[in-house]
Amino acid sequence: MTKADFGIIGLAVMGENLARNLLSKGIKIAVYDRAPDRTVRAFLQRCGAETAGAYSLAELTDSLARPRMILMMIRAGSPVDEVIGQLLPLLEPGDILIDGGNSNFRDTIRRTRLVESYGLLYVGMGVSGGEEGALKGPSLMPGGSPAAWPHIQPILQAIAAQADGVPCCDWVGRDGAGHYIKMVHNGIEYGDMQLICEAYDLMRTLLCMQPEEMAQVFTAWNDGVLKSYLIKITAQILQMKDADESALVDKILDAAGQKGTGKWACAEALQEGVPLPLFAEAVFARCLAANRDQRLRLNRALPIATSTFAGDRAALLKDLEQALYAAKILSYAQGFSLMRAAARTHNWGLRYGSIALLWRGGCIIRSAFLGKIKEAFDREPDLENLMLDEYFARALQQGHAGLRAVCAAAALHGVPAPALQSALAYFDACRSARLPANLLQAQRDYFGAHTYERVDEPRGAFFHTNWTGEGGDTSATAYSV
Amino acid sequence: MTKADFGIIGLAVMGENLARNLLSKGIKIAVYDRAPDRTVRAFLQRCGAETAGAYSLAELTDSLARPRMILMMIRAGSPVDEVIGQLLPLLEPGDILIDGGNSNFRDTIRRTRLVESYGLLYVGMGVSGGEEGALKGPSLMPGGSPAAWPHIQPILQAIAAQADGVPCCDWVGRDGAGHYIKMVHNGIEYGDMQLICEAYDLMRTLLCMQPEEMAQVFTAWNDGVLKSYLIKITAQILQMKDADESALVDKILDAAGQKGTGKWACAEALQEGVPLPLFAEAVFARCLAANRDQRLRLNRALPIATSTFAGDRAALLKDLEQALYAAKILSYAQGFSLMRAAARTHNWGLRYGSIALLWRGGCIIRSAFLGKIKEAFDREPDLENLMLDEYFARALQQGHAGLRAVCAAAALHGVPAPALQSALAYFDACRSARLPANLLQAQRDYFGAHTYERVDEPRGAFFHTNWTGEGGDTSATAYSV
Repeated sequence: MTKADFGIIGLAVMGENLARNLLSKGIKIAVYDRAPDRTVRAFLQRCGAETAGAYSLAELTDSLARPRMILMMIRAGSPVDEVIGQLLPLLEPGDILIDGGNSNFRDTIRRTRLVESYGLLYVGMGVSGGEEGALKGPSLMPGGSPAAWPHIQPILQAIAAQADGVPCCDWVGRDGAGHYIKMVHNGIEYGDMQLICEAYDLMRTLLCMQPEEMAQVFTAWNDGVLKSYLIKITAQILQMKDADESALVDKILDAAGQKGTGKWACAEALQEGVPLPLFAEAVFARCLAANRDQRLRLNRALPIATSTFAGDRAALLKDLEQALYAAKILSYAQGFSLMRAAARTHNWGLRYGSIALLWRGGCIIRSAFLGKIKEAFDREPDLENLMLDEYFARALQQGHAGLRAVCAAAALHGVPAPALQSALAYFDACRSARLPANLLQAQRDYFGAHTYERVDEPRGAFFHTNWTGEGGDTSATAYSV
Repeated sequence: MTKADFGIIGLAVMGENLARNLLSKGIKIAVYDRAPDRTVRAFLQRCGAETAGAYSLAELTDSLARPRMILMMIRAGSPVDEVIGQLLPLLEPGDILIDGGNSNFRDTIRRTRLVESYGLLYVGMGVSGGEEGALKGPSLMPGGSPAAWPHIQPILQAIAAQADGVPCCDWVGRDGAGHYIKMVHNGIEYGDMQLICEAYDLMRTLLCMQPEEMAQVFTAWNDGVLKSYLIKITAQILQMKDADESALVDKILDAAGQKGTGKWACAEALQEGVPLPLFAEAVFARCLAANRDQRLRLNRALPIATSTFAGDRAALLKDLEQALYAAKILSYAQGFSLMRAAARTHNWGLRYGSIALLWRGGCIIRSAFLGKIKEAFDREPDLENLMLDEYFARALQQGHAGLRAVCAAAALHGVPAPALQSALAYFDACRSARLPANLLQAQRDYFGAHTYERVDEPRGAFFHTNWTGEGGDTSATAYSV
């Protein structure tokens, strides 16, 4: 029997669908699962005799051609370490181990070092697109041991989504780079979803629109700059009827769920000192929505009459489209700034235009917009902030007025719009030549003698003032640091 | 020679000032520093013969009465572990080791276990108030081995700040509780400072007020509900003149600094799933202000004309006072919610009214407002959210209109007000009986089959819809989970 080209460990829904995707491309695979009697047997029955079924890890490694390529689609965390530990004695130098789960990139950095120390190659790969993407073409974000890429490239690019003929799979960078990019993708996904929810809430609460009407708006938006998978499915969701022919969306409870990977990007942003407020607001909005019982208690304790919008409704809808687009630019500006900082910290040499292309198909955040980001990085590969690109700068020049109008209306009418408002504050702070941090520095110097710099002295010269006058000298005094 | 009552390791400015504070209360101390020839000798020369100077850790432990009480005022991180390792062989069961640095509470949990395993007692103590507080009366937040408290209580309460005759020092809880509370204190401090900076920026940019005028406003505010240390020093800062008699605050560069402890609270909030958006906005605002060069580039790339405020100036100033107070309530509501969640996670049994009293004097966030928080927890010791208290609910009923007006003005006029806007969005989301998370859950079910709950079914029953219709069944279908 000829050896298989590619092994898969883990036949839960993502693993099974990737396996079927590989089969559909004519790639000969071997599969293993820790419950082989149930899952491997069932898979072989469904997906035919071309597949090598393995009932132990040793059988799996025996059934694979060299260098072996094995994709783990198992639960992130200690299970990955356990499987790596079991595989190491069964593999030979040059073999390639791929983790396609939602692993934390710091674990992936550690595991790459470990696996490489055995002469093997390791790949941490972000996989996005859910069940359907896994089956029909996901977005794949591989990083790790660079020597692995030439071997896995033809197979992974064959099963990945294609956008305008370009596979949504390319090498990201060393060790944890692939899983880092997936983490940022998840943060962006949280932001995109929260922004859409805020737009929906403004239409629903401020304009008292019905789901059918809102579906029309989202459908129209999907023909414009906002064209994206999430806008499209939102239109479909708003049209969906329940059994009694009323709108299904109105029957769904407003208690948000999350699997927790969105918060990683925020934690990393805090670590890097890169402002990522929109992501944080989106994560916290889910936490807040999840605590529905407390909200109902607060709703009774704080009875505040809210007025409906008395202004120009058509204008507000137009503003809303502008607001969403501007906020989306600002959200992605934050995400790409974080990647830029991480690339420096971890020495990854990320290619940002290529990353934008990875997300243009297959994944939840796929959109026309990502093509614009690719073009921006084509113009300037080392672009410091998306807002500095001519296209996005122009879009913000045109769109900020809509964002302002929407944020003001939300504030005055009592509709929570944390992500939209955070986006606007980020925009106004980012482009500010004079933030109030001069007062902040004065306060820090007052109570903690932390010193400050001056506008009329070179950067790096620090000054301290005896603010209370108790020491006798009330003027600013230079001292060397 | 009689033994000393209390030992101090580390004679940098905080350690030295605490030592002088102890001496001023007639407490006999012994002091050690890792550079004893310089620091210990100098301290003895300045502070007299009553003090036992130690030139080694062994000399320090020899000079102390049993049970020994030793306060480490050294740099947080590995130095604390090193000193503990050196002290363990020199101490005897029942001796008490206190860490007064800005240690991460997770380190303090670990160290408490380690030190207790040797039969000793460990205390992680938050210290706030800066140099001046250390000398004249800091806020002290001790937690750790409960058996230590009766021994250290009289000494620590003697040197702590007093507010209305009550010492700002009380036992917080087991292991890391004291350092946890200090971490939340630091997050609140970031929030308070950011809110004041935004108010200042609105007066400066929107109303074109001069520092002198603004100082008058802050002085007036300090006679009202906002009365606090930070409001008071802001008024003083705004009055301070530079050498040329112009306002010093205008000469200070708007490049914010931070020591990084503010971000810990945000990271923990993400971990606990407790919404803390205002703290996150405050931390990110500092990161953003620090990156001044990029701001100047963005300022040139995005030339947007901003208009000054044409409305009623006096009304806006009144709104601003209301806005600050409402946002402050919302900020502390977030901080106390985080402590409540942490108390459950770590089994600490925190007494929130007592914590409010710890902060009423000595520390940077000291304010009249903290007395109101104490009263709220007196009314309901298990208060779930500050907003549910009758006093704060009424204050928010009265103040939210001002917060709305200020946020709308900031949005329309291009003044960044991330913390104020985040506070308002938190308020409106918290009291919302219907957030747009129903759409979010539909999206998650659409692309990830994550399921949702329904408004017309009991909590805990989860449903999945075949949204695309490709599976044939387009209606919502119940299935058991």
